[in-house]
Amino acid sequence: MSIEAIASAVPSIKESAAEIAQQTGLEELFITEKIGVKWRHVLAPDETGVDLAEAACRKLFAQTDLKPGDVDDLIFVTQTPDHALPHSSALLAHRLGLSSSCAAFDIGLGCSGFVYALSVTESFLAGNAHENALLVTCDPYSRIMAREDKGTNAVFGDAAAVCWVRRTGTRCQLGRGDYGTDGSRAGALIVEAGRGKLPFVSVHESSLAQYSRDQLRLHMSGRDVFEFVMLQVPKSIGSCLERNGLTLAEIDWFALHQGSLYMLMAMAQRLEIPREKILINIDRFGNTVSSTVPMLLEELMWKEDLHDRKVLISGFGVGLSWATNILTFQY
Amino acid sequence: MSIEAIASAVPSIKESAAEIAQQTGLEELFITEKIGVKWRHVLAPDETGVDLAEAACRKLFAQTDLKPGDVDDLIFVTQTPDHALPHSSALLAHRLGLSSSCAAFDIGLGCSGFVYALSVTESFLAGNAHENALLVTCDPYSRIMAREDKGTNAVFGDAAAVCWVRRTGTRCQLGRGDYGTDGSRAGALIVEAGRGKLPFVSVHESSLAQYSRDQLRLHMSGRDVFEFVMLQVPKSIGSCLERNGLTLAEIDWFALHQGSLYMLMAMAQRLEIPREKILINIDRFGNTVSSTVPMLLEELMWKEDLHDRKVLISGFGVGLSWATNILTFQY
Repeated sequence: MSIEAIASAVPSIKESAAEIAQQTGLEELFITEKIGVKWRHVLAPDETGVDLAEAACRKLFAQTDLKPGDVDDLIFVTQTPDHALPHSSALLAHRLGLSSSCAAFDIGLGCSGFVYALSVTESFLAGNAHENALLVTCDPYSRIMAREDKGTNAVFGDAAAVCWVRRTGTRCQLGRGDYGTDGSRAGALIVEAGRGKLPFVSVHESSLAQYSRDQLRLHMSGRDVFEFVMLQVPKSIGSCLERNGLTLAEIDWFALHQGSLYMLMAMAQRLEIPREKILINIDRFGNTVSSTVPMLLEELMWKEDLHDRKVLISGFGVGLSWATNILTFQY
Repeated sequence: MSIEAIASAVPSIKESAAEIAQQTGLEELFITEKIGVKWRHVLAPDETGVDLAEAACRKLFAQTDLKPGDVDDLIFVTQTPDHALPHSSALLAHRLGLSSSCAAFDIGLGCSGFVYALSVTESFLAGNAHENALLVTCDPYSRIMAREDKGTNAVFGDAAAVCWVRRTGTRCQLGRGDYGTDGSRAGALIVEAGRGKLPFVSVHESSLAQYSRDQLRLHMSGRDVFEFVMLQVPKSIGSCLERNGLTLAEIDWFALHQGSLYMLMAMAQRLEIPREKILINIDRFGNTVSSTVPMLLEELMWKEDLHDRKVLISGFGVGLSWATNILTFQY
């Protein structure tokens, strides 16, 4: 299989760290230096996630020789679809003029979504002898964040990304993935819908207490997520390397989910990864959930000669859930 | 691959056609004879979809030698998760005590969900060299239906089903699937979330006009869905048979999505399928969305000698979306 091309789109409203500081009451320096966000984009009131995904796909069609009629599968990773039902992939398939014989489904995952879904996409193409898939990611958290919430609104930005994944393509190979789930910590990053009991009581619950747990509102205990990430992600990276018969030193770049700059730097230090191998885009886009990793790859594919290079990809967050894999590029 | 076992669960409240007639103002005879529902179950106020899925999985563990620690993948098909995020699979993985290295994700599909997800599950197992997956379906529409709505409340029932899918199992083989999507008809079966434009204006819109399009409320234009089904599903069944080198006469049973008894009989007549080859469970459970097809298979696996038998499975609805495939049993 191969990722033949990646395109992305951001919404029309661009906000600076100074504006985010005003909204949340946080210090601007804290936002730019610790969280690491200098700019991010948010949806305008008349924009939606499917609009953003459509824009990314139209860019991809313009940049490549892929035609809408040649798309066999459309897979859309989101937990904030335009409607509760139908799936966003059905709406997007129609907007893009894909064939009615295109398979289309959504995958409900957050920050680990791209790494999981890349394997789902590769496998589904292989299992069905299909040729071309579009793998779309878009989770516009601006729709579910309280503007004054320090814990979320200073971190997340809206974006959509799309990968053209081709079964017989040879540009890059996907290794064997490492996956995991710890539902006992689900409450650390959640939009409650008034249904169901939660297994999790945060040890840092006080950080959430100021926000009422109202419907369709994002709540995150940043400290709980940070502790989870520092515990599980280095283990997952180690397992993934072992499973693929590689050492950390053989990896050229690390496309890690961008929870915060502080988290990325702590991870680099823990794993003893040179700073220049860690790809960064949180400064310009914020944490864009499942779009973070493909946007890092998109930029890398434009900027670098990838011949014979290896990129480790790792997503972690909502669930809590994690997934790590390795892309080996031929050219 | 193989489906080793299937289990299902229904919630504690059981309603008769007479009770549904009272709620909706429809004639009881119309509900039992045309829609085909004699009984169906709905969630109690303190029950959720994840509770129901957990009950189905516990039954499966009790009936088989599969241990929670041996589950590599948990795939949960739903468009009505307990929470907007995280995914229901993360919560269920924790409740069942699955290993933290279990891969878990949700698939956002409606009535076509099981047939799609069976291929996703088989492919993901193969692509990752995993052995055991649980494929769960649960979409409790009672949570999103207006009790007085003739178009939905007389049709749908709540249930959860779970299949144990094993990569190296030999009990049955999955054929090559036929998939499709017509997003231009998305508005025929929808829960709007106040976001995004819809492509679809029903030619039978008057049937919906009496209900305000409020948030998180299911709307269905039964006539539009019926027209779509009668147009696309016979074509999909034909394509699937051709793709697998089979004729209609070689199929022993048809496990078709149970939109209504009238629709099933119209389909049997259109395709000239003998009545006794059409499996039925709408009479006892209503239309249980993505759980309908696995529950038909569950019953068949208990009742019949499946040696060398072929079952055509087809799901269609929300999206609008369809998927057809063929299971060939060895024993």
